[in-house]
Amino acid sequence: MYHLTALITCLAVALYFYTSILVARARATYGIKAPAIIGNPDFERVFRVQMNTLEWMPIFLPALWLFAIYIADPIAAAIGLVWIVGRILYMSGYSQAADKRSRGFAIQAFAAIALWIGAIGAILWRLVQG
Amino acid sequence: MYHLTALITCLAVALYFYTSILVARARATYGIKAPAIIGNPDFERVFRVQMNTLEWMPIFLPALWLFAIYIADPIAAAIGLVWIVGRILYMSGYSQAADKRSRGFAIQAFAAIALWIGAIGAILWRLVQG
Amino acid sequence: MYHLTALITCLAVALYFYTSILVARARATYGIKAPAIIGNPDFERVFRVQMNTLEWMPIFLPALWLFAIYIADPIAAAIGLVWIVGRILYMSGYSQAADKRSRGFAIQAFAAIALWIGAIGAILWRLVQG
Repeated sequence: MYHLTALITCLAVALYFYTSILVARARATYGIKAPAIIGNPDFERVFRVQMNTLEWMPIFLPALWLFAIYIADPIAAAIGLVWIVGRILYMSGYSQAADKRSRGFAIQAFAAIALWIGAIGAILWRLVQG
Repeated sequence: MYHLTALITCLAVALYFYTSILVARARATYGIKAPAIIGNPDFERVFRVQMNTLEWMPIFLPALWLFAIYIADPIAAAIGLVWIVGRILYMSGYSQAADKRSRGFAIQAFAAIALWIGAIGAILWRLVQG
Repeated sequence: MYHLTALITCLAVALYFYTSILVARARATYGIKAPAIIGNPDFERVFRVQMNTLEWMPIFLPALWLFAIYIADPIAAAIGLVWIVGRILYMSGYSQAADKRSRGFAIQAFAAIALWIGAIGAILWRLVQG
């Protein structure tokens, strides 16, 4: 069973959902009415946090689950937690200024790439072993 | 087996795919050539319907499947159907005017959040039970 | 087991990740600083390649896996490989000019739709059979 990976998935989805709420709030704060998505740099940074988190979901979630299935549930969940922490740092940094997003971005990229490398390595190993 | 949840997944993917077709059509109707994504509010609303549906897919699909696995396939599928209906109302409302998108949006948000709460509740229950 | 489908998933994620790297490079090349996403047609085409690949991930991945589970792992993986090839042609074509994106786009759309039709057909067959 993959209870810990399932839990991390729920938490990652919740964090991503929270970035959408921040966009809705920023629309009100900065007076950017839907469907507009540009017009104020402060709004655009909050919008880019959501978009970038969305952009990473199809990298993170498949890599997380393939790692959990082909290697181990608790290790996948632990690396997934690092991804979430990196995402939180990225979100709080980018909301302040565009150049404060780098550290959190690097942490979450490192975690996602580690999951991907582990997954593809284990898959190839199984395929070679027949 | 999760036949009903699998069916709802296919239908949700088809609905999302349909929102992309509407964008392609709106490009022709309003003369917005790719790669441009702004320039006409009617086009932008159709584009935002697709984007918003895309934005909700990584919330809906993981929550739907974790709910199905940790609770029950037919209940997950039934709530998933509510999500699809809400999405259709959102799409038809937003295509007409930005302020007609609220009811459908609320329905699909309610359905997705119900799936998420059910899933995380059941996952935590299993973890606590060991 | 679904080793081949898992491998294709990792390759599709890697290709999508590569489209993000191209956006980061194009930001530097064309001087488009984050969070801006418009201002130069050459940048916008590279950005649209990433966005369009993102847009197709929630169509491709669920259809790929439901096809693998309900029909067969190697057939799903083979059609998935066609999708990846179409995506590469789309990426290289669109990066040159907006009207060179059509052939690759058609190939990947054909592959994704084939996966979706196979999946929903097999799901309905199982449901009807009880």
